[in-house]
Amino acid sequence: MKFGLGLAAQHRPDDDQAARFREHLEQVRLARAVGFSTIWASQHFLAQPFTYFQPIPTLGRVAAEAEGMTLGTGIILLPLFQPLDVAEQMATLDVITGGRTILGVGLGYRDEENTALGVDPKSRVGRLTEGVEIIERLWMGEPVTYEGRHYTLRDVRTSLRPVQRPRPRIWLAANTDAGVKRAAKLGDAWLMNPHSTLASIERQLALFHETRRALGRPRATDIPLIKECVVAEDAATALAEARPFLEAKYKAYQQWNQDDALPKGETFDLPFEELARDRFIVGDPARAVDEIARYRERLRITELSFRVQWPGMPQATVLRTIRLLGEKVLPKLR
Amino acid sequence: MKFGLGLAAQHRPDDDQAARFREHLEQVRLARAVGFSTIWASQHFLAQPFTYFQPIPTLGRVAAEAEGMTLGTGIILLPLFQPLDVAEQMATLDVITGGRTILGVGLGYRDEENTALGVDPKSRVGRLTEGVEIIERLWMGEPVTYEGRHYTLRDVRTSLRPVQRPRPRIWLAANTDAGVKRAAKLGDAWLMNPHSTLASIERQLALFHETRRALGRPRATDIPLIKECVVAEDAATALAEARPFLEAKYKAYQQWNQDDALPKGETFDLPFEELARDRFIVGDPARAVDEIARYRERLRITELSFRVQWPGMPQATVLRTIRLLGEKVLPKLR
Repeated sequence: MKFGLGLAAQHRPDDDQAARFREHLEQVRLARAVGFSTIWASQHFLAQPFTYFQPIPTLGRVAAEAEGMTLGTGIILLPLFQPLDVAEQMATLDVITGGRTILGVGLGYRDEENTALGVDPKSRVGRLTEGVEIIERLWMGEPVTYEGRHYTLRDVRTSLRPVQRPRPRIWLAANTDAGVKRAAKLGDAWLMNPHSTLASIERQLALFHETRRALGRPRATDIPLIKECVVAEDAATALAEARPFLEAKYKAYQQWNQDDALPKGETFDLPFEELARDRFIVGDPARAVDEIARYRERLRITELSFRVQWPGMPQATVLRTIRLLGEKVLPKLR
Repeated sequence: MKFGLGLAAQHRPDDDQAARFREHLEQVRLARAVGFSTIWASQHFLAQPFTYFQPIPTLGRVAAEAEGMTLGTGIILLPLFQPLDVAEQMATLDVITGGRTILGVGLGYRDEENTALGVDPKSRVGRLTEGVEIIERLWMGEPVTYEGRHYTLRDVRTSLRPVQRPRPRIWLAANTDAGVKRAAKLGDAWLMNPHSTLASIERQLALFHETRRALGRPRATDIPLIKECVVAEDAATALAEARPFLEAKYKAYQQWNQDDALPKGETFDLPFEELARDRFIVGDPARAVDEIARYRERLRITELSFRVQWPGMPQATVLRTIRLLGEKVLPKLR
């Protein structure tokens, strides 16, 4: 099993942003030193009440600290961009990393972002679908002619290809059943979301595998999961430290209407203990090992990416979780 | 006077792109060590017959080697993007560098790029103008409502501001008189192009200053010029090394119809000696000092950025030019 670190590149606007960025670099160096394989950066625009560093320049800078690691966008809001733009930006990042990138993409769910970037929210699914198809073909290096509803290319061929052959992997994030089926059809993997409970994910992962089988596509070799995580030497400390940040975050999600995008029957409007159950990994190292082993047994995950930080959490706490995951959890799961 | 290095991030597609990228990092480290102040990365899509690394991830990675230096896009093809996208990407880069970025923007001139990215070439001027206005307002941190022909924003406020206050400088590249007047109106500086002769630039710089005066804008404090440059210990070596690469490059420009965008009366269809005169800096260090002193005297330039590499030029030649510029040319001009 591989471990990944999702950079929590969002901060309070009145904070020292450059200092926070340097802390992310320190997190990356530690994660690499204790055996993590992947660094992820995600994307939002207009991320009030927090800032949110854009993933492409962030991963460019991170690459200097992440020799030998894989860098992934987890995720880019693909409908907001021209496919050729994303194809060449990510190809550049693939060159920078010597061929160690994963393109994770998602629909997004905030109308505010879409409209401010000139995209009709209703067109998101179409733009995501066409975008993935076009990027894949551009990366293969062939001349692309494409007459879509949203994008038109005539005999377009990019000379700037990724280093990886045939191309970097494309992983699709999805919350709903329709999104999971889309991931099965279009992507190399379904990037399983951290918001749903184990029961929901288990059901949807079966749907993912079935959909691929029905389409005659090969079984996905990557089964990646993202989890919110705080690990301390003792469980009570982990819980006390995690609770205020995760409560605040999931309240913010509700304000962003993120829970409208959840699988049917799920909600974030729960007491913390219920919200955490089968959803977050919070506890001592032994508890984290047990939880992860359970996810692995039930889902056959190949990679687990951790979000270990929320705006305002002290760097020492973040580094401790990373260190304990690498030193006391990962060795028990290899 | 400050010296800048423009990364020639274009290479033959069958070359080892990751190795070429590492060479750029070596160039940056040397430039920093010998006293250069700024690193520039420019932009093209579909840059056949060469590859072309995208500037945002490139500068993100370069930042790790460029502590204390300023990083600039020289240029981004602004009409191809949503202003909010550029505002937040560059704000992130400004955070990464601790507040040391310059946003250089230009119109672009290749229909192939515009159409492949869904932009009507006829809308470029309008999109550039609106884009600069919107980015400037977003960076100031105020809620932006903007009803343009190309972009519409309603009460949009980004929490991810650049570190620099009030905002990073915005420099406009321009070739034509109309473009120079636009730079005077919209920009903090005119990024003077390397293609025109000294006489043309001198005339247009007067137009730039006059236009600002007429508009009641303050005199520009930055007068930046870009030059193609090869320096060797002896002039004959510099000329012999520069000639094949610069000849090939300016032939490629003609194929891209770049010379249609030149000031009136200029053409690239010239024998090499004429093309080089008053246009390139090619020679021994003494010759380079004389040439630069002449540009400084006639134009009052504050910053000179050098392009010292073209596809296929050996890294040793590139490094030698950087070293001689820093060690034998810059000290005579301070």
